Amino acid sequence: MSVDPRESQPNPQGSRIDPYVGSYAARAQGMVASEVRALFAVASRPEVVSLAGGMPNISALPLEALGEITRRVVVEQGRAALQYGSAQGDPVLRQQICEVMGLEGIDANPDDVIVTVGSQQALDLVTRIFVDPGDVVLTEGPTYVTAINTFAAHQARIEHVLMDDDGVVPEALEERLVRLEKEGARVKFFYTVPTFNNPAGVTLTAGRRERVLEICDRFNLLVLEDNPYGLLRYEGEPVRALRADSPRNVIYLGSFSKILSPGFRIGYALAPPAVRDKLVLAAESAMLSHSSFNQAVVGRYLADQPWKEQVKDFNEMYRARRDALLSSLESLMPEGSSWTRPQGGFFVWATLPEGLDSKAMLPRAVNERVAYVPGTGFYSGGDGRRNMRLSFCYPTPEQIREGVRRLVGVLESEIALRDTFGSASAPPRPGDAAPAPDLP
Amino acid sequence: MSVDPRESQPNPQGSRIDPYVGSYAARAQGMVASEVRALFAVASRPEVVSLAGGMPNISALPLEALGEITRRVVVEQGRAALQYGSAQGDPVLRQQICEVMGLEGIDANPDDVIVTVGSQQALDLVTRIFVDPGDVVLTEGPTYVTAINTFAAHQARIEHVLMDDDGVVPEALEERLVRLEKEGARVKFFYTVPTFNNPAGVTLTAGRRERVLEICDRFNLLVLEDNPYGLLRYEGEPVRALRADSPRNVIYLGSFSKILSPGFRIGYALAPPAVRDKLVLAAESAMLSHSSFNQAVVGRYLADQPWKEQVKDFNEMYRARRDALLSSLESLMPEGSSWTRPQGGFFVWATLPEGLDSKAMLPRAVNERVAYVPGTGFYSGGDGRRNMRLSFCYPTPEQIREGVRRLVGVLESEIALRDTFGSASAPPRPGDAAPAPDLP
Repeated sequence: MSVDPRESQPNPQGSRIDPYVGSYAARAQGMVASEVRALFAVASRPEVVSLAGGMPNISALPLEALGEITRRVVVEQGRAALQYGSAQGDPVLRQQICEVMGLEGIDANPDDVIVTVGSQQALDLVTRIFVDPGDVVLTEGPTYVTAINTFAAHQARIEHVLMDDDGVVPEALEERLVRLEKEGARVKFFYTVPTFNNPAGVTLTAGRRERVLEICDRFNLLVLEDNPYGLLRYEGEPVRALRADSPRNVIYLGSFSKILSPGFRIGYALAPPAVRDKLVLAAESAMLSHSSFNQAVVGRYLADQPWKEQVKDFNEMYRARRDALLSSLESLMPEGSSWTRPQGGFFVWATLPEGLDSKAMLPRAVNERVAYVPGTGFYSGGDGRRNMRLSFCYPTPEQIREGVRRLVGVLESEIALRDTFGSASAPPRPGDAAPAPDLP
Repeated sequence: MSVDPRESQPNPQGSRIDPYVGSYAARAQGMVASEVRALFAVASRPEVVSLAGGMPNISALPLEALGEITRRVVVEQGRAALQYGSAQGDPVLRQQICEVMGLEGIDANPDDVIVTVGSQQALDLVTRIFVDPGDVVLTEGPTYVTAINTFAAHQARIEHVLMDDDGVVPEALEERLVRLEKEGARVKFFYTVPTFNNPAGVTLTAGRRERVLEICDRFNLLVLEDNPYGLLRYEGEPVRALRADSPRNVIYLGSFSKILSPGFRIGYALAPPAVRDKLVLAAESAMLSHSSFNQAVVGRYLADQPWKEQVKDFNEMYRARRDALLSSLESLMPEGSSWTRPQGGFFVWATLPEGLDSKAMLPRAVNERVAYVPGTGFYSGGDGRRNMRLSFCYPTPEQIREGVRRLVGVLESEIALRDTFGSASAPPRPGDAAPAPDLP
């Protein structure tokens, strides 16, 4: 009898055989790494133009001033800033957060704010306190990939609601709620990125905001408004946050990751008092408290630095990049393609000609030194094969133009294949719909 | 028909009536604030000697040097340190963490380390990937209060195993496992703070460590070893971490909160590779990534500062405080009391004379300007009424001596009441067993 050579070896410490495979919680079964992950490691090489990542471009930050702020926080406030803080977060920063939210029409009390590890943690905590396995979470289709991961990790049933160039379609939302009510489904909240949507780039119009709030109010449905990009507007008129017009029915999530830096991991939630109480308890059990030091640094930055001017500078830079992407797409994209035209944020959502598959062609694109995120990452059910998210936040305008040229080269080969063989790509295998890793 | 006046008022924005009461997840139902919380707010007044909190004393930290480190991280590494990082954490810091763990006999690969928001987040993530509602988690009795909160938030059934002055009792652990196996219970892990236990102050002896590992191995039970205090030893010989002798069956949690500062929120888990993979995915969905900035600061501190000398200084300070507490207890505590004699860490666990109730007497103690944490906070089932945790980490030796004098005054009044009325205190009401808020 021959012996499997793997068995005859002593089991090395680094063995990947999982002796705990029967022990995990049900929620952990769905936690599997996407196979696209390896590809993104390749895509981060310098020769690749990455239109994939959502990393803000922080090169314009005043590092000397910011460094001096961190030094002074340690030296002058170290006894408090280097100690544990409260799970709800620093009261001074919570007051400043209210002022930031005021720029989008929100009138809030600092008592109702909780500071979190990026708005991602707020999203996780809200899901944690509301979602039992099998509960329904409504989201736009497409929606933020890591929100899908978080909802899936809590075993939610994710239902996407149709979105168009004006944001989520109120009629589609209402129709879905009627159907779910008939089914007796427990619908917990409607998660939305209404302004400069990630990944779609579109913004919910003022008229639709009113309709959406009215529908959710009528169905007693909480709205979870995620607004990391609201202040990054490059043209058009500011819109009021949903929370501004519905303080009792909206949990609002914000972040300093895009208007200052993601490196401090300061996000926040604004919630009705009863929900806020639960969020604070959940935060305490999740991490005791956030970094007092980071909160003090962000507080001093807001107090001492011309941060709104800094955001204007960011917006100048991002506008030029968006313009580069849109004009390149306009000149080069093949017939049958379409794409959104964002007034702010980081992302353009493109639809490819019939018969093309953005996920199947990704390896070829990376081989041609351009990367994007396939649309399937932004749906929980495998939709989005003809779509891709193109980010314009990180590469320079010149890199963006070169990236689009490369991308269009790949598309043209795919179209030629499609025209010869009827389809450019093999159908997706099971598991292919797993969301791609992604930064916000 | 009279109208309820509350109903005739418009519902103010700050109303505490909870319109979402029917919407929360099952796990959120148990998230209620302890009524002891208000008392601890009072206890933080300067005139109160608090033997309650577990805040490290960071007054000895070299703030100028640390401030300069933070400034240099921003100025010299800002482009990376202010950006998003990986969910697993900075590779350089993970290597340094392996060196720190090496001091307690652990031989680890940085690939198996994940950096977390304090070790509390590691505890939460481990629970998240392993515990389904109703699963059993074994812990020492008593155990760390926020671990109880975290297990309860995941709807675990918490079972305490007997502990004495030599740590958990192996025979009790084995007997419990046999019983649970017969029951068909799904036991997920044994959570232990084997060195300078919080709250008990005791350390698992070397002989028992071997027994405990052997038993857990035989029952295929993961050990979750939480070791925030291991390097804070004031006398006696260092012990090897459990993880040092069982790399494949132990998940190890560590933290920089006590050997540097809790303000950076840098903790970590070391886990077998398959578990590590799940933890990284869970961390990504919980917060995307920890602060790159804080990780870089801690990394530079470890590289550039004489941090082991700093820990020696901390230990000198804590030793004097422990000695003050132990000698005051020795001179003053009434007959029928007993207490542990920790060789390190922050805590002494006291047992009061028969008939006394540490929770019921807490308001009187705070009134006499001394605070402690009642023993009930460290059990999930209401045990610990005759116990209290006394922390010696934060107050000065003089304050500690004064605190014990005040405490003993309260105990003597309680004993007089007991001797007159048979019992000093009313029996606890339902809900009284809810763990008290506490820092680690």
